[in-house]
Amino acid sequence: MEQPDQITACLIIIGNEILSGRTQDANLAVIGKKCDTLGIRLTEARVIPDDEEDIVTTVNICRAEFTYVFTTGGIGPTHDDITAAAIARAFDVAVERNEEAVNALDRYYEPGLLTEARLKMADIPEGARLIDNPVSGAPGFQLENVFVLPGVPSIMEAMFDGLTGRLVGGDPILTENILTNLPESVIATGLEAVQEKYPDVSMGSYPYFKKGKLGVNLVLRGIDSARMNAAAEDLSATILGLDGKVLKRLSPGMTS
Amino acid sequence: MEQPDQITACLIIIGNEILSGRTQDANLAVIGKKCDTLGIRLTEARVIPDDEEDIVTTVNICRAEFTYVFTTGGIGPTHDDITAAAIARAFDVAVERNEEAVNALDRYYEPGLLTEARLKMADIPEGARLIDNPVSGAPGFQLENVFVLPGVPSIMEAMFDGLTGRLVGGDPILTENILTNLPESVIATGLEAVQEKYPDVSMGSYPYFKKGKLGVNLVLRGIDSARMNAAAEDLSATILGLDGKVLKRLSPGMTS
Repeated sequence: MEQPDQITACLIIIGNEILSGRTQDANLAVIGKKCDTLGIRLTEARVIPDDEEDIVTTVNICRAEFTYVFTTGGIGPTHDDITAAAIARAFDVAVERNEEAVNALDRYYEPGLLTEARLKMADIPEGARLIDNPVSGAPGFQLENVFVLPGVPSIMEAMFDGLTGRLVGGDPILTENILTNLPESVIATGLEAVQEKYPDVSMGSYPYFKKGKLGVNLVLRGIDSARMNAAAEDLSATILGLDGKVLKRLSPGMTS
Repeated sequence: MEQPDQITACLIIIGNEILSGRTQDANLAVIGKKCDTLGIRLTEARVIPDDEEDIVTTVNICRAEFTYVFTTGGIGPTHDDITAAAIARAFDVAVERNEEAVNALDRYYEPGLLTEARLKMADIPEGARLIDNPVSGAPGFQLENVFVLPGVPSIMEAMFDGLTGRLVGGDPILTENILTNLPESVIATGLEAVQEKYPDVSMGSYPYFKKGKLGVNLVLRGIDSARMNAAAEDLSATILGLDGKVLKRLSPGMTS
């Protein structure tokens, strides 16, 4: 389905705590939505441990394959925060104490509180461009097409929002949801027929069980709002033709 | 950090809806915890689209690299459910209508409701061993070291729990949490010293902001409970020595 001229992205989530199930990742969903709005297709995410070898290998594979690579996690002041060093190794550059980053930390901390441990957060790969952190001082950084962000979701999101000017996407990807009471197996054949009619609109079918009721959330995604609308009309008609109900319909641009 | 004799696993999460941010994945955290209990190290997770090429490539890379591979998603009755066909292609075998799977569906559905669309869920790669679905009939399947599970979390979990006999792990991985009011940058040096003393206990440091308060959750992971306990004692003493508080301590085996 991927077009060769598509702008793609991969998210690398760095953190043992995500893999052990201790922490529930919240960054993938946020970045996925923001990429849609920017017209960037987030076509892969990888969750890897706080392990230098793993980070180097994964970053080097992904930065060759995708237009943009985002990483989250591992840029704090403790011994398990090894992302900056690993990214430097992936690009074969040194880590240096970045003066601009020291200044950013200095503005954030009260006089006297910018300890050596905190200063570690200003150790950034040579040649990197900083990503401003409006929440807690410590910056992220960009090296070529790799954007290094923190793991704490609220801080990550604020920093990602500051990136918009650096990310060049295509047409925004629109989403339309149709909620029906029909089970997946009843809608399957009709859905496939509509999908074949609109190959430029990607259609997904997601069953749900809510309050004891079974149903399906049909999700349409595409870039042409007229085609999206026509496909949604066709699908709604298909549902009604099967004696089903259209419980809810959310139009392009609205979040569900 | 990885030992060559470790039992490892990779989770492949299949679904456009996860990458677009429409659906929040809940399976990684569940499988991560269950792997810990089984003594299996979940060392990677990948989220990929409902795309046959992507599934084939990813499954073939991962099944060569990890002891076990789990996939979630894409085994329902609609056109976007392509996991079974893709796994068959990855193993270079045909898909066949599996009699045992037909029987399982037949037991689940009321007479007359086992439609052709639903029967698609009995199309399983040749030579696969089924994974029983005690919730909604449609089985998953295992081919060599690859375990194919559904995406709906409650069903996935019930099916994973039925797998225990087929997964051979090492010693269960124990977790201990210490919550402190000290910020990461204050504890960093002391934490690193304790980590160096206990190389067999992996120590992670996760800052949190809760109700306007800043603090750190220190997570110890290892397999020897005596060593875990000694490391936790050392860390607690380090925190107190820095005028910090141990707000909470959760011992091995307890979930946080």
